Amino acid sequence: MTAPPHENRPSGRASAHLPPSYDDRPPGSGRALPDTQQGIRRRNLARVMHAVSAEGPLSRASVATRIGLTRAAVSTLVDELIRWGLLEELGPERPGRVGRPGSALAVSGHGPAGIGAEIGVDHLAVCAVDLRGEVSARAVRHGANRGRAPSPVIEELTALVRQVVAEAAGEGLWAAGLAVAVPGLVARDARTVVRAPNLDWHDTDLGALLPADLPPAVDNEANFGALAELWLGKHTPRNFLHVSAEIGIGAAVVVDGRLLRGTRGFAGELGHVPVWPDGPRCRCGGRGCLEQYAGEEAVLRAAGVERGEDPAGPVGLLAHRAEDGDEGVRRALRGAGTALGIALTGAVNLLDPESVVLGGALAGLAPWLLPSLAHELAQRTAGPACPVSVSRLGPEGSLLGAAHSVVRAVLDDPASVAERA
Amino acid sequence: MTAPPHENRPSGRASAHLPPSYDDRPPGSGRALPDTQQGIRRRNLARVMHAVSAEGPLSRASVATRIGLTRAAVSTLVDELIRWGLLEELGPERPGRVGRPGSALAVSGHGPAGIGAEIGVDHLAVCAVDLRGEVSARAVRHGANRGRAPSPVIEELTALVRQVVAEAAGEGLWAAGLAVAVPGLVARDARTVVRAPNLDWHDTDLGALLPADLPPAVDNEANFGALAELWLGKHTPRNFLHVSAEIGIGAAVVVDGRLLRGTRGFAGELGHVPVWPDGPRCRCGGRGCLEQYAGEEAVLRAAGVERGEDPAGPVGLLAHRAEDGDEGVRRALRGAGTALGIALTGAVNLLDPESVVLGGALAGLAPWLLPSLAHELAQRTAGPACPVSVSRLGPEGSLLGAAHSVVRAVLDDPASVAERA
Repeated sequence: MTAPPHENRPSGRASAHLPPSYDDRPPGSGRALPDTQQGIRRRNLARVMHAVSAEGPLSRASVATRIGLTRAAVSTLVDELIRWGLLEELGPERPGRVGRPGSALAVSGHGPAGIGAEIGVDHLAVCAVDLRGEVSARAVRHGANRGRAPSPVIEELTALVRQVVAEAAGEGLWAAGLAVAVPGLVARDARTVVRAPNLDWHDTDLGALLPADLPPAVDNEANFGALAELWLGKHTPRNFLHVSAEIGIGAAVVVDGRLLRGTRGFAGELGHVPVWPDGPRCRCGGRGCLEQYAGEEAVLRAAGVERGEDPAGPVGLLAHRAEDGDEGVRRALRGAGTALGIALTGAVNLLDPESVVLGGALAGLAPWLLPSLAHELAQRTAGPACPVSVSRLGPEGSLLGAAHSVVRAVLDDPASVAERA
Repeated sequence: MTAPPHENRPSGRASAHLPPSYDDRPPGSGRALPDTQQGIRRRNLARVMHAVSAEGPLSRASVATRIGLTRAAVSTLVDELIRWGLLEELGPERPGRVGRPGSALAVSGHGPAGIGAEIGVDHLAVCAVDLRGEVSARAVRHGANRGRAPSPVIEELTALVRQVVAEAAGEGLWAAGLAVAVPGLVARDARTVVRAPNLDWHDTDLGALLPADLPPAVDNEANFGALAELWLGKHTPRNFLHVSAEIGIGAAVVVDGRLLRGTRGFAGELGHVPVWPDGPRCRCGGRGCLEQYAGEEAVLRAAGVERGEDPAGPVGLLAHRAEDGDEGVRRALRGAGTALGIALTGAVNLLDPESVVLGGALAGLAPWLLPSLAHELAQRTAGPACPVSVSRLGPEGSLLGAAHSVVRAVLDDPASVAERA
């Protein structure tokens, strides 16, 4: 199977697009769906999908109980979801349960898949995730992208996408959409990279370069990292601040389970919060921004370490040296932790999140960043300091978040798949 | 008429309460209302109220066109809203319009009213606002509240509330609810003042002290100030940061037309964002917080001005001196503007708001704060700096926001009034 033709692909008029709909809205709350019979039916289809996804395998009767509809109504919805390849029947439930045995329903592992892609400064990566959340295929290509023009980079990325889509098709999956994580600011049209300084891309319409047969959604890697934490983390709260880093420092604010995007889509620029306002000049035009103390280049410089060719990259290099007891590296990371703690104090006072999560490259450096970071937060906060945790997803977060964003969009509006399949 | 008895008053278990429902949700979007016949009817009643409130007077036919229901359905809803005293008929529309003349509908000025109250450090104020948004009664009492126990203050406030309710009753209005603005952190139960350092109140359950016959909702004055700006400002965007001050500095973050409250209800503490992290010790436990440079006491100290007995209060005193050309005062205000600009740069980078609005006491000092504030924002922001505007509501904002929050709750769910009336 290959991806079915897609007729609703965004047109060239960037301003006409809506932001991607993969925020974690409560199932069936979709504001976009009106109170018509049709809108209510679509919401109910989403409720069924979310119930089975979250708690399946479930019988029709159990679904009915959970979402508060009659069993007859649920059966009609379920039949449709099975026909579209989104649910499957596992056969009769084990005996010994109370009542008439029903056939257990599960989310299909052979229907639509979300394709996630990541454009890193030093790599490209693509993966496919099925509706059950399992990664069915992946591909990575190492190599520096900094300073390369967007077109050849996207050509390489597209080749990886084709490879992953073909591999997933071998398992009966077809691509429901493509989400691309980039290390930069992305406009709310979900296709224009306004500024990716570490790639040296500016005002680049990636939507026009990406494959025409997949509905693409482009977003900042920190946003996808935060969404991955929200969807895949074990005890992630619904209000948190996710801090990640590749070369720059990015953050994403999640409020009531939804990303705070900002007016232009630029929210979360923690790296340019002033820490010592009279400090060194930053490439953003400011002075003493967090990135000047906790960004990769600042830490390497403070540690007196050359970028070098360590296969684990600069972050791996720093982690190895710190593990080996290199006092210069440890001091540099303590300094970065202090600056992070000061910037996060401001963010916590403004946003009152339930926790701060360190993700991306920061997760690997957490043992040396955390003590000074937590010290600043505790010293500077009245009352109990905001807890800080470390993501278990690490540098995989953004890629997984991208793929899962497509999966969530299917769960949130299963009927959209029927229109395309 | 007096306020009808209210049976849904919050019980003593603070944790069981939901936050007040006065955020500016799009009409009819109420997530709390389920997709039952009853829920849909309530949402449609809200749609009618909002349509007439925003664009009235309107005929039934015009309402039907605007909200996408049949004229028959709208007529049934309108009849109910008239019966509850929420809408009134103005008689036949002017001739000369196309089609059969209909009777124009308007929001009633003689039904429920929102009672707003403000506990200031140096005053108490109460007002009543009708559904049309007009202030029908108000009362103020000057006198220092700092260091007084909550009980006698609330007793005085309650007397003012009774006076305003009686005055409003003279115009056929009855109190639909009471919203109270306090200069401090309020828990998400909308009744517990967790910390109001300038009153010296801590963990005070105001809900238990306020009149038992009115459903009370307590909130931070900065939040009500921001809501007033959102609802009453001429060109207020739906994403903005509202910065206000009484003695401390407070802020409120409005995202997509809703207040960002934070996990515990403590979001918006701009006053404790670190500006110069090695600066003077702050009462919050931190160092170099914004309040140490731009709070009222810091500015008075920097200006070498005694608090004194100026009838316009310390802010009026500073404004008069600055107007008279006092260079010490002007320098102190420039310094406060610089600190505000640095703290706001961080907030703007995190939140990407459409604008920053200076409200409360800051509005009166804007001519001397703005130049240095805007300079820091422009210098420190990559791309176009976030525009800064000055509220026209000034120190009235919080009180009006409180009263309007009750009015909005009625517009958002008119059926709730029928249950109480």
